Amino acid sequence: MKSPILAQCVLQRGLSLSSIHCGSSAAMIVPASGLYKHEEPASQLSSSRKINRSDNSRTYCFDRVHETRLEVSLKSVLNLFLLGKFRVAWEYGNTTFFNSIFKPILKRLSGTKSLCPKQRSRRKSKSSRSEFAIAGKNIIFVGGLGCIGMHTCREIVKKGPKNLLILDKIEKSETIKNLQELNPETTTVTYYPYDVTVSLVESKKMLTTIFEKFKKIDLLINGASILDDHQVEETIAVNFTGMMNTISALMDFWDKQKGCSGGAIANICSVAAFNPIYQLPVYSASMAAVFSFTNSLAKLAPITGVTAYSINLGIMRASLVGQYNSWMDVEPCVVHLLLQHPTQTPTNAARNFVKAIEANKNGAIWKLDLADLEEVKWTGFKHWDPRI
Amino acid sequence: MKSPILAQCVLQRGLSLSSIHCGSSAAMIVPASGLYKHEEPASQLSSSRKINRSDNSRTYCFDRVHETRLEVSLKSVLNLFLLGKFRVAWEYGNTTFFNSIFKPILKRLSGTKSLCPKQRSRRKSKSSRSEFAIAGKNIIFVGGLGCIGMHTCREIVKKGPKNLLILDKIEKSETIKNLQELNPETTTVTYYPYDVTVSLVESKKMLTTIFEKFKKIDLLINGASILDDHQVEETIAVNFTGMMNTISALMDFWDKQKGCSGGAIANICSVAAFNPIYQLPVYSASMAAVFSFTNSLAKLAPITGVTAYSINLGIMRASLVGQYNSWMDVEPCVVHLLLQHPTQTPTNAARNFVKAIEANKNGAIWKLDLADLEEVKWTGFKHWDPRI
Repeated sequence: MKSPILAQCVLQRGLSLSSIHCGSSAAMIVPASGLYKHEEPASQLSSSRKINRSDNSRTYCFDRVHETRLEVSLKSVLNLFLLGKFRVAWEYGNTTFFNSIFKPILKRLSGTKSLCPKQRSRRKSKSSRSEFAIAGKNIIFVGGLGCIGMHTCREIVKKGPKNLLILDKIEKSETIKNLQELNPETTTVTYYPYDVTVSLVESKKMLTTIFEKFKKIDLLINGASILDDHQVEETIAVNFTGMMNTISALMDFWDKQKGCSGGAIANICSVAAFNPIYQLPVYSASMAAVFSFTNSLAKLAPITGVTAYSINLGIMRASLVGQYNSWMDVEPCVVHLLLQHPTQTPTNAARNFVKAIEANKNGAIWKLDLADLEEVKWTGFKHWDPRI
Repeated sequence: MKSPILAQCVLQRGLSLSSIHCGSSAAMIVPASGLYKHEEPASQLSSSRKINRSDNSRTYCFDRVHETRLEVSLKSVLNLFLLGKFRVAWEYGNTTFFNSIFKPILKRLSGTKSLCPKQRSRRKSKSSRSEFAIAGKNIIFVGGLGCIGMHTCREIVKKGPKNLLILDKIEKSETIKNLQELNPETTTVTYYPYDVTVSLVESKKMLTTIFEKFKKIDLLINGASILDDHQVEETIAVNFTGMMNTISALMDFWDKQKGCSGGAIANICSVAAFNPIYQLPVYSASMAAVFSFTNSLAKLAPITGVTAYSINLGIMRASLVGQYNSWMDVEPCVVHLLLQHPTQTPTNAARNFVKAIEANKNGAIWKLDLADLEEVKWTGFKHWDPRI
C-alpha cells in the first residue's frame, strides 16, 4: 500500500499564489512563486512525486520526506509568513495536529492575509514608532557610565522614564546620584554592576533579577565598548560578544517565539562600521560586526517581536582625550589625527541620541556625527541579496 | 631663560606644502594643508606660541609639548609619508638625534618625494600584482581541509607552488596524500595541526617552527570558519579572533616596521559580509568583521608591507548539505531556503579562487558567487570618511 501523502505543494509559476496542502500531518515551506525562477534543488524534491498540471503549475506530493522535520517546518511557515516574504494560501489543513498548532496562528493570519508584504511592513513600522516614548518606560542602559553613556543618561532622565537601570562595570556613585536628582519625582535611577564579558548564564542571572523586580523592560541600550587595538581579544569580548550575549540573554524575556511581548534594542555603534579607521582595524571590525548583527536583528523583528536599530557615532572630542593604541602601533598618533577634523561634543551627541530613541524605528541606521542625526540609506546591501 | 624650541611647524593654508622644522629634537605630524580646512584642536596647540606670518601661513613653535612623545611622533611622520597621505618638506633637521633616526628614511624618501600619492599607489599596486604567481611560492592555507579549502588546495597544487602548508584542526591524511600526488615533482604538501582558537603565543610558536624550516612564506590564506549560530562564542573565536591572531602572529615575520619583507594575505570571507543572512546573524556579523579587518589591512600595506584582499564566497551547495542552526532557531530551514536559489559548486569556486590569488590585488574585494569572480566596488565606504 502506498504511504499517505504527507504534504502536497502547488507552485504556480508566473503567478503570485503558492499553496500548501496538508494531506495528513506535514507542511512545506512554499515561497511565493516569483522566487521560483530557478530550478528547485533536486535534493529536496527527489522523494516527491511530480504531477504536471495543465494550468502552468506543478504539484509535488511529498510522502515521507519531511516527516521528521514536521515541527520546524510548521514553525518556519509561520515565520516566513510573518516576515512577509511568502504568500501562502491555506486551502485546507485536515489533521488534528495541523489545526491544533495552527489554530491561533490562522486566526492572526486571517487579519493580515490580504496584505502584501510592503503594506504590512509600512503599517508595522508606523505603529511601532508611535508606540514608543521614553516617558514612563523601563530602560536598561549597558555601559551607561561611559562618556556618551553618561551624557545620554542625563538626556533620557530629563524625558522622564519610569526606571533607568544603568548596568556598568564600575560604579560611579556620584554620577548615579546626580542623575537621580535630575528628575527625582518621575524617574528612579538604579545601578547594577555588570561586566558584559561574563558568560551567557551570568547575563541571564542578572536579567532574571532585573525582571523579577521590574517585570517589564521596554528598551535595551547597548553602549559598552572599548577603543584600544592593543587589546584584541578584550575589544571583541566587550564590543561584540558582550553585546550579543546580553541580547541573547534578554531574548528569554522578550522573544515572541517564547510567548513574550518583545522590546526594542538600540545598539551604539560607530561610523567606523561604514568605513574602517584602518589604523584601528580591530575596533573598526568589532563595530562592523555590531552593525551587521543589528541589521539582522531588525529583520528578525517580525519573528522575535524585538525591534532594533543602530546609532553610529562619529568622532567625539571628549571620548578621545586619552591616548588610544593603534594595531601593531601602525599609527601612534591616531587620536591626534582624528581630532584634527571636526568632531562633536558628547552633550550634543546625547541630545540627538535621545531623538533616535524616540523615533524608535526598526532597522534604522542612524549616523550621529558632527552633532547631526541622519538616517543612512545603507548602500552596502546592494552588493548581494540572500533572497530568503 | 626661554626653553629651546623643540619643534616648529609651518602650516600654509590653501597650499599643498606643509613643513616640519626641527629646532632641537622633536618632530610634528603635519598633514597636507588641504586637510587643514578646520580649526586645529586647541588642546594640541595650547602650549605653543603662535606666530602669524604675512604669507597666508601660520607658524607654531612648540616648546616642550611633544617631548615625551618624540619617538612615536617621528615614526608617525614616516608612516604618514609612506601612506601618501601627507606631503612633508624636509627643510632641515639640525640635531644629531633627528638625523640618526631619519638618515635611512630620508634616503628612501628622496627617491619618492616628487611622486604624488596617487602615482605612488598606482605604481605600487602594478608591481605587486605582476610579482605574484603561485608557482615556486610558499603558501600557508589555514583551514585548508574544509570544503572550499580542499578544492582550492587542489587548484593551487596544480599551479606548482614550492610548498603548500596546510594548517587545519583535524588531519585528513588521505586528502593530503591525494594533494601531494597531484604535482609530486614540483610541490611539497605539508600538514600542520593548528586550531585557530589557540592563543596568540601559541600561534607565534607554530609560525616560528614554520619559518625556521621554510625561511620565507609568500602568501597566507585564512579559510577557517564555522557556520552554526547556536555556537556564538565559537563562531567569533574561529571566524574572527582566530583569523586576527594568525595574522598578528605572522606580522612578527612579515612586518616592514620590524625589518621584514612583507607578504600577502587572502582572507576567505562571505557575501554575508555585504548583506547579512539575517537568520544567521552571528555568522554574518563575524564575516562583516573579517571583511572590515581585511579592508583595513589593505590600507595599512604601505606601512606593514603586507597586502590583503578578501574573497567573499557566495552560497555553495556542497558546504550546505548539512543542517546549520539559525540563531535562536528563528529559521530552522535556513539551509533549505538558501538552496532554493542558484548556488555554485566548490570545484567552480576553487578555480576562480585561484584567479583571485594570481591577481594578487591589494585591497580587492572579490565576490566569488555563482561560479563567477567579480571585483566589487564597495559602496559602503561612501557613508563616512575618517579622512586620516
